[in-house]
Amino acid sequence: MSKIPYRLYLTEDQIPRQWYNLRADMKELPDPMINPVTMKPAVEEDLYPVFCRELAHQEMDAETRCVDIPDEVLNIYKIYRPSPLVRAYNLEKALGTPAKIYYKFEGNNTSGSHKLNSAVAQAYYAKHEGMTSLMTETGAGQWGTALAEACSYFGIPLTVFMVKVSYQQKPYRKDVMRTFGADVIPSPSDLTNAGRAILAKDPNTTGSLGCAISEAVERAVTTEGCRYVLGSVLNQVLLHQSVIGLECETAMKLIGEYPDVVIGCAGGGSNLGGLIAPFMRDKLTGKANPHFIAVEPASCPSLTRGKYAYDFCDTGKVTPMAKMYTLGSGFIPSANHAGGLRYHGMSPILSKLYHDGYLDEARSVEQSKVFEAAVYFAKHETILPAPESAHAIRVAMDEAVRCRESGEAKTILFGLTGTGYFDMAAYSSYLDGSMTDTIPTDEALQRGFDSLPKIPGVQEEP
Amino acid sequence: MSKIPYRLYLTEDQIPRQWYNLRADMKELPDPMINPVTMKPAVEEDLYPVFCRELAHQEMDAETRCVDIPDEVLNIYKIYRPSPLVRAYNLEKALGTPAKIYYKFEGNNTSGSHKLNSAVAQAYYAKHEGMTSLMTETGAGQWGTALAEACSYFGIPLTVFMVKVSYQQKPYRKDVMRTFGADVIPSPSDLTNAGRAILAKDPNTTGSLGCAISEAVERAVTTEGCRYVLGSVLNQVLLHQSVIGLECETAMKLIGEYPDVVIGCAGGGSNLGGLIAPFMRDKLTGKANPHFIAVEPASCPSLTRGKYAYDFCDTGKVTPMAKMYTLGSGFIPSANHAGGLRYHGMSPILSKLYHDGYLDEARSVEQSKVFEAAVYFAKHETILPAPESAHAIRVAMDEAVRCRESGEAKTILFGLTGTGYFDMAAYSSYLDGSMTDTIPTDEALQRGFDSLPKIPGVQEEP
Repeated sequence: MSKIPYRLYLTEDQIPRQWYNLRADMKELPDPMINPVTMKPAVEEDLYPVFCRELAHQEMDAETRCVDIPDEVLNIYKIYRPSPLVRAYNLEKALGTPAKIYYKFEGNNTSGSHKLNSAVAQAYYAKHEGMTSLMTETGAGQWGTALAEACSYFGIPLTVFMVKVSYQQKPYRKDVMRTFGADVIPSPSDLTNAGRAILAKDPNTTGSLGCAISEAVERAVTTEGCRYVLGSVLNQVLLHQSVIGLECETAMKLIGEYPDVVIGCAGGGSNLGGLIAPFMRDKLTGKANPHFIAVEPASCPSLTRGKYAYDFCDTGKVTPMAKMYTLGSGFIPSANHAGGLRYHGMSPILSKLYHDGYLDEARSVEQSKVFEAAVYFAKHETILPAPESAHAIRVAMDEAVRCRESGEAKTILFGLTGTGYFDMAAYSSYLDGSMTDTIPTDEALQRGFDSLPKIPGVQEEP
Repeated sequence: MSKIPYRLYLTEDQIPRQWYNLRADMKELPDPMINPVTMKPAVEEDLYPVFCRELAHQEMDAETRCVDIPDEVLNIYKIYRPSPLVRAYNLEKALGTPAKIYYKFEGNNTSGSHKLNSAVAQAYYAKHEGMTSLMTETGAGQWGTALAEACSYFGIPLTVFMVKVSYQQKPYRKDVMRTFGADVIPSPSDLTNAGRAILAKDPNTTGSLGCAISEAVERAVTTEGCRYVLGSVLNQVLLHQSVIGLECETAMKLIGEYPDVVIGCAGGGSNLGGLIAPFMRDKLTGKANPHFIAVEPASCPSLTRGKYAYDFCDTGKVTPMAKMYTLGSGFIPSANHAGGLRYHGMSPILSKLYHDGYLDEARSVEQSKVFEAAVYFAKHETILPAPESAHAIRVAMDEAVRCRESGEAKTILFGLTGTGYFDMAAYSSYLDGSMTDTIPTDEALQRGFDSLPKIPGVQEEP
């Protein structure tokens, strides 16, 4: 009988009462967003047409260290949180590693992922500020499902632009969103200028998150009482997702543990940014020195092969520009099965931390290796992981095997962001041996870089 | 801030160490099974060709009140148990009821249901007794998935005969089972005499659980080192599922509650039997008098419209005969979306308790009413229920509304057996308005009753 349980659940009153704003402890802040109209640094008011005011404030506020979680948000967190911290005893045994492997499992809610943490917050602020509808985009469908749940709870009509390849690969995802009352539209669509422009160029495009964002933003700013909400990349999202890391920190303290290595998959950065938040604070303040690893798909390698440059967050080039690792908003990733990681850029906070060496390492992995790890993990830990999450599993397993070889008993923590129930077409293609790996050529990357904006005085030559 | 949390998780060391055998406290035992070859009461040894020995023993053992849970089983329980007891604050508020509604949520594991509780036990005993393969059937796919997980863990090859209508409605369910290494075959198949006979009669049949059982049993008894395992109906399964009720009892004690009404969906009876076990013990021993309600689909109404008679557990008439509420093994239920409830019979234990008035009430509900409740529940409690589970939700909501009308603040407990991630085709048909309700005619029921066996001296005239 082991002293540390398989699954450690905090109690309801151990759910954090405040989100943690990592920017308050950063040595240097990310460069400011730039308003594409004025080409000047954006101010909070510039964001009001797109975001709710409180969310615009959270987006820009780099000073407030701890932000109170509203009671109504907390009441929903209590329905599905705290999420368990799991000790992967079976996986450790199967790998024969001396490493201790922990994962924070965020998949035990109907949205199937951590996305609900920010969806609830954003829907709450929209309701609070009297909005009458919301627009968003979704890749794999997890964000859309999470927001559909949150909007259903607060009674706000929601339209979701869903990346076309995911819409096709995951027919039932849209039915879940519809069950929660959302209107789901495959993107690119002919409902927006952004969508029509992309379809005119390439009628057979499978879409991208960047394009879906353009469509959702365009509809939001042209609809009365409507705002746009986004499930990743933004500072406000990382703020809300800090609840993941904070719960991890509390749980690990309870069992006398601290991670040597923290691993998360990174598409836009919402999970990784939330998971590492308190541990990164320790690194920034000199209290500890955990090793952070971001894992991204080889098919969409923004950290490992992208440029650190100003870029639009969307393909339609209507959003403010952010300094981040990016493949260029014109980069169209291949139809990889990890739809949630098919994004050209990376959270500006994580980008800055990576650039400055605090986010220690980024690795890109091919999807066949990812699914190999996913199936192995499922068989030993009984959880069927989402393809996105399996990126972190792959690297956690690699690290554990490295420990076996070196004899080091490291403590590894990774984020298991969600479940793969709606990804069975992908599993099926892996099991059938028909899955292929697509890695962008240097030429494909260059085409993406060519789309980077030129900003006088800042970024003459991308 | 409420004192009773939304979700109450017991700790790992509060998982029961013993299963509870309800038969030890029954006033009268169910009538004995009858061996169809000898037409005499079956003895333990009669079951050895079909079941593992320890499971055959558990099937017949009506005396041992508490059965130790083997350590290896407990170690898997720890990966996904204890399951939470949830207070449905949001549902209560939405219904405006003074009732307190609790549900035991068994869906937070990859099998998506409570089925894993017995799958783990049965796979363990098979491994322990040196079996080299297992055969089973699955309706909705939840049992098959659960057993695939358990067999994958213990390294036992598994073949699953999946009811054809579910195989077609849920293409991804089979891929989950394949992910865990199982071989999945749509039933009826041409691999068995039982399957071939049914296909010869009706090549377009959508199959049934009874038929799939016949196929699995036939393959098990004709394969060296192979046994058959079943996810419901049997006494051994109800024994294993008592872990659900025992955890409920512990959790409710912690918060000073006791249910006035206990509600569960009933197909073969595994969930209901497990959920009510300790509360039924209280009723049988005079300690308390909760009101028990079994909920079944109007399309397959074994308790509400069936006969209490000896019948085969399978369509192929190879299993021992059990005295139970049954529609006749020849009854083919319509293609209702709650595949897990499409079974002609009912657990002999529950049948006896219902016959003797201890299981107070059975209600049948139409699927459109069930999905109406499912969507309402999802919107307020954020969990997307399985169609099977939504039968219990429907009646729990009806009871809560009745409390609103009468002003009674009853404590309602129901079993939320699983999630509906693989039932989106059904949700979709409900949302599109294309779902129909099919209720068997008296003539259809009579055709089923005509298939009941005649047993000299016992059941001359069914």
